[in-house]
Amino acid sequence: MNVDLEIAQKAELQPITEISEKLGIADTDLEQYGRFKAKLPLKYINEDQVAQGNLVLVSAMSPTPAGEGKTTVSIGLTDGLNKIGKKTMAVLREPSLGPVFGMKGGAAGGGYSQVVPMEDINLHFTGDFAAIEKANNLLAAAIDNNIQHGKRSVGLDPRTVLWKRVMDMNDRALRQITIGLGGTFNGVPREDGFNITPASEIMAILCLSNTIDELKERIDNILVGFTFDKKPVFAKAFGVTGAMAILLKDAIKPNLVQTLEGNPAMLHGGPFANIAQGTNSIIGTKMGLSLSDYVVTEAGFGADLGAEKFFDIKCRYGNLKPKAVVLVATVKALKFHGGVAKDQVKEPNVAAMEAGMPNLRRHITNMRKFGVNPVVAINTFPTDTQEELNRLKELCSAEGVRAELSQGWAKGGAGCTLVAQAVVDEIEAGKNDFKLLYDLRLSFEEKVEAIAKRIYGAARVNYSAAALKMLKSLHENGLDTLPVCIAKTQYSFSDNAKAVGAPKDFVLHIRDIEVANGAGFLVPIAGKVMRMPGLPLVPAAEQMDLDSEGNVIGLS
Amino acid sequence: MNVDLEIAQKAELQPITEISEKLGIADTDLEQYGRFKAKLPLKYINEDQVAQGNLVLVSAMSPTPAGEGKTTVSIGLTDGLNKIGKKTMAVLREPSLGPVFGMKGGAAGGGYSQVVPMEDINLHFTGDFAAIEKANNLLAAAIDNNIQHGKRSVGLDPRTVLWKRVMDMNDRALRQITIGLGGTFNGVPREDGFNITPASEIMAILCLSNTIDELKERIDNILVGFTFDKKPVFAKAFGVTGAMAILLKDAIKPNLVQTLEGNPAMLHGGPFANIAQGTNSIIGTKMGLSLSDYVVTEAGFGADLGAEKFFDIKCRYGNLKPKAVVLVATVKALKFHGGVAKDQVKEPNVAAMEAGMPNLRRHITNMRKFGVNPVVAINTFPTDTQEELNRLKELCSAEGVRAELSQGWAKGGAGCTLVAQAVVDEIEAGKNDFKLLYDLRLSFEEKVEAIAKRIYGAARVNYSAAALKMLKSLHENGLDTLPVCIAKTQYSFSDNAKAVGAPKDFVLHIRDIEVANGAGFLVPIAGKVMRMPGLPLVPAAEQMDLDSEGNVIGLS
Repeated sequence: MNVDLEIAQKAELQPITEISEKLGIADTDLEQYGRFKAKLPLKYINEDQVAQGNLVLVSAMSPTPAGEGKTTVSIGLTDGLNKIGKKTMAVLREPSLGPVFGMKGGAAGGGYSQVVPMEDINLHFTGDFAAIEKANNLLAAAIDNNIQHGKRSVGLDPRTVLWKRVMDMNDRALRQITIGLGGTFNGVPREDGFNITPASEIMAILCLSNTIDELKERIDNILVGFTFDKKPVFAKAFGVTGAMAILLKDAIKPNLVQTLEGNPAMLHGGPFANIAQGTNSIIGTKMGLSLSDYVVTEAGFGADLGAEKFFDIKCRYGNLKPKAVVLVATVKALKFHGGVAKDQVKEPNVAAMEAGMPNLRRHITNMRKFGVNPVVAINTFPTDTQEELNRLKELCSAEGVRAELSQGWAKGGAGCTLVAQAVVDEIEAGKNDFKLLYDLRLSFEEKVEAIAKRIYGAARVNYSAAALKMLKSLHENGLDTLPVCIAKTQYSFSDNAKAVGAPKDFVLHIRDIEVANGAGFLVPIAGKVMRMPGLPLVPAAEQMDLDSEGNVIGLS
Repeated sequence: MNVDLEIAQKAELQPITEISEKLGIADTDLEQYGRFKAKLPLKYINEDQVAQGNLVLVSAMSPTPAGEGKTTVSIGLTDGLNKIGKKTMAVLREPSLGPVFGMKGGAAGGGYSQVVPMEDINLHFTGDFAAIEKANNLLAAAIDNNIQHGKRSVGLDPRTVLWKRVMDMNDRALRQITIGLGGTFNGVPREDGFNITPASEIMAILCLSNTIDELKERIDNILVGFTFDKKPVFAKAFGVTGAMAILLKDAIKPNLVQTLEGNPAMLHGGPFANIAQGTNSIIGTKMGLSLSDYVVTEAGFGADLGAEKFFDIKCRYGNLKPKAVVLVATVKALKFHGGVAKDQVKEPNVAAMEAGMPNLRRHITNMRKFGVNPVVAINTFPTDTQEELNRLKELCSAEGVRAELSQGWAKGGAGCTLVAQAVVDEIEAGKNDFKLLYDLRLSFEEKVEAIAKRIYGAARVNYSAAALKMLKSLHENGLDTLPVCIAKTQYSFSDNAKAVGAPKDFVLHIRDIEVANGAGFLVPIAGKVMRMPGLPLVPAAEQMDLDSEGNVIGLS
C-alpha cells in the first residue's frame, strides 16, 4: 500500500535553489516555499524562446475508469528526454486537494515517475488553489452584498445568479443549498451551491491569461447573471476585480518543483477538463518554454476532449504551437474498448485488444487534423503480455505512427527513452505543422458541429429546448462569439459513456449551454457534469495520519 | 490615504535568511515562503529557555470602537526594547483575511511600527488560515458524509450538529443556510451556517497545542453534537483526525517576519477574542522565548477579556509565566470612559479624562490580582494635548504604576524606549510573581463567578434557562471541568456595551454556554457574538488594485 508515497519519501530531493540555478534563475528572483518548492516571477517569460521551443502534448486514447497514467507518462517522458540529452521540463497541472481525501487520491504521477515533494504537492502546495478559492468567493460575497444593500444595487435579479462559491473539498452537502436565511441582517435568501475549486471560472481565467492585465480584463468579463429585464450583468459591476487580482498576485506565478530524477517540473493551475480547458496555465507553459528546450505537458481526459481543448482554446489564446503529440494507450484500455468488461481487462486477450483498436485509430487520425502526427506511448502494466505489446506496436505501425513502451512507473526516465527518442525524431523530421480545427468567425453552432463531426464522429448535433433558449439569449447579447468547450463523458467519443470503441453516426445531444465569458469560452453540455464530488463510504482520509515528528502517513 | 501601505512599501526589508541567521537558525531548517517570510521547525523550542525568558503581555484598558493600537504598541515596544539593548522578538497573531476587504482593514501594526511584508501578512501569508479552514471543513464534510452513509453511522442526530464550516471572508449570506438539498445524492438536508475562519475551534486548538500529539488529541475531543439519546459525539468518531493533522502539518510551525526596523517578529495563529482565547499560539510564544531574551505579545480586546484569557487559558495550558504586563491607554479612550461621546473624544478635555480614570484603574488593579504590576503605555495621537498627557502620567503615578508615552506610530522604536525601559525596570525589580486567578478544581459556576466578581466587578451572575439546560447536559456528560472563556462586549466591564467607565454592582447575564471541548474551554455567552461579519455598503475591496507589474494598491 502507498507505494507512491514510500518512493517519494525515500527520494533525496535537491534543494530547489539548485534546480533553479541550472535554469539560470537569479537567486533574488526565486521565491522559495519551503526548501523544495518555489515560485518564479513572470519576467522570465521570453516570447522568442516560446516561439522556438518544442512543446510536446501528452494526451490519450479514451480512458477507462481506472485512468491510463497520462501524468506518469508525462513525467517519465520528461526524465527520458533529459536522459537522451534534451533539456526538458514537465509543465503540468496542480492537483486538487478535494479528491485526496476521497477516493481518487493525489495526482503527482506514480512509482518512479513522480513530481516531488509529493505530499506538499497533493496538499496545500504553494497556496494557489486557496487563493483562487478566495478570489472566487470574494466576488460571491460582493454579489450578495450588492443584493443586500439595495442602495447601490446593480439591478441583478437574485434568481439568475450564475456565480457559485467554491471549496476545494469533496462535500456533497454543499451542492445545493439556500443562503441568506434568518432575517434582514443575514442577506437576501436565494438558492445557491458550492463547486469544487478547480471548477471555478477563476481557475480557468488564471490559466488562460498571459498577463496580469489580461487576468483583470477576464475577471471583469465574467457573466454573473441577469437583470430583471434580462440584460447580462458582468463581474466588473461589483468593483472587486482589483481586490481579486491582489488575491491572485502570487497564484499567477508558476511553481517550480522537480521530478524524482531531479529534472525541473512546473506545476501551475488545475482547471476541470469538462467545463473548462483542463490544462495547466498558459503562463506556466510559456515559462517552461522560456527556460528549457523541450516542454512536456498534459491535457485532461482523452484526446477528443483534452487535446482538442488544449489546441482550440489554450493554444489559440496563448499563441502556442505544439510540435508533437504523445497518445497514451494501454493494453487494458484497448481491451476495454474491444468490449471486455472492466474487471476482465487484466486477462490476456489479443483479439479483444485488436477489437479496441478503432478507438486509438480515431484519436490518431484526429491528431492529424490538427497538423500533428502523434507518437503512441504504451504505458505498460505487469498484466500485459509480450504478445499483446508486440501486436499493439504492429497495429500502430500499420497506422503510420511509432509506438514505444513507456515504463516510467517501474523504471523512471530509463523506461521512457524510446518514447523520448520517437518524440525527438518526430519533431526533428519537421513535418508537423500545427493548426487550429476551426476559425473563430464560425457561428457557435458551426463550431460545435466541427468538433462533433470531425473529432467525435457524430452524424449531427441536437439541441434541447433549454440549450436553444440559452443560445437565443447569447445571440441577443452578443455573447456567442467565443470558442467552445464541450462537456461530455470521457469514456466515449459520443455522449453515451457505454458506447466504447469508435461509435459513429450518433447524435450529440446538447442539453444546455453555459457561459464562461471571462475565461473566454462557451460550454455546450452534452452529459452530466459533476462540479462537487462527494466522499465515499470509506474516505481515503481515514487512512491518513501525521506522526509526532510531523511525518505524513497514508497519503496516496 | 493608505499611509501604512506606503510606509511598508518604501521599507527596505532584510532577506529573512539574515533575520534567521541572527537568531541562530540553521539554513537547512529555515522554510522560506518567498524572500521575506519563513516557517521554523518545532525543534527550536527549548523549554529551559522558555522558563527563563521574559514574556511581556501587551493588553489595554477597555477600548473604544476605534481601537487603541495594541498591535502598534507591541511592535513599537519590540523595536524599543531592541534599541535599549534587549534581544527582543514580537510574537503576535496573524490577521484574518476577511476584514481586509470589509471595513476594518489589515492588522499588521501601523505607521512606523509595522510588521512586514505588510501586504503578504494581510493576504494569504504562509497559508495557515487556509490550512485551518481546510481542516475544519474536512471534519464538516466527514460529518455530513457519515450522516449520508447510514451504513457506518455513528448515531449523530443531524439536528444537533454543532460543527460549522468556515470561510475567511466577510460573507453574511453564509451565516444561516440549509445544506444537503436536492435529493438523496446530495446529502441529508439540515440547517447550518458558516463562521469566519478565526472563529474555528481548529484555530483555538492549534494555538493551545504544545505538540503535534496534543493537537491530534484536542481534535479528537471536539464536541460535534449529540446522539438521538443525547449522548455526546466527539470528532474522534469520524476518523479524520490524522488527515486533519496532515492538513495542519505546516500551519503548526510559527512564521518568522520582521518589524520595519529589522527586528524579528513571529506571527502564528489568530483565534477570536470572544469565543476563544484571542492570542497567538503557545508554540509561537515558546519559540520566541527560545530564540530571544524578551518576547512581546498581545491579547485581544481589553485586559478584562484578553489578559484574563491569556493568563487563565493560554498560560495555564502552556505553563507560561509572564514577567510584565503593559496596559495600553489613550487619552481618547479615557475621555470616552469619562462619558464623552465617540465623535468628541478628539476635543481637549482634562476633566473628562480624569472621569475615565476608574476604567484604567480597575484594569491596573486587576493585573495585580495575577501577581503582576503593570506598566501603562500611553499611545499618543496628534489630538492629545500636553496637559492631558501630563495629567494622565500623574494619575497613573498615583496608582503606583509607571506610565510612559508610546510613540511608535510616528517614530518607530525610538518613540518607545521609555516604555521599554519601564518594562525592563519592572522585570529587573523582580517583584512580579505571576499566578492564575482560579483553580481548575472549582466548579464551572465558581470559575465564572471568580472572573465576574474579581475582574469585571459584577455583583452576581445570572443564568438563562438555556444556559442552565446546557450546564445540566455538561454536568451529566462530565464536560464541565474546563477553564472558562467568557464571551462579552469589550467596551465595558459589564455585559452592557454602553456602561463605560468602571460599572459595579451589576448582574452578568449568561444567556448560553458553548463547548470548545477540543480547544479546552467552556464559553459562557454574555453578549451577542458575531461569528461571520458582513461587508459594508462600500467595501474596502473596491479601493484595491494590482498594477501590471504586480504591485498592490489600496490595501489598508
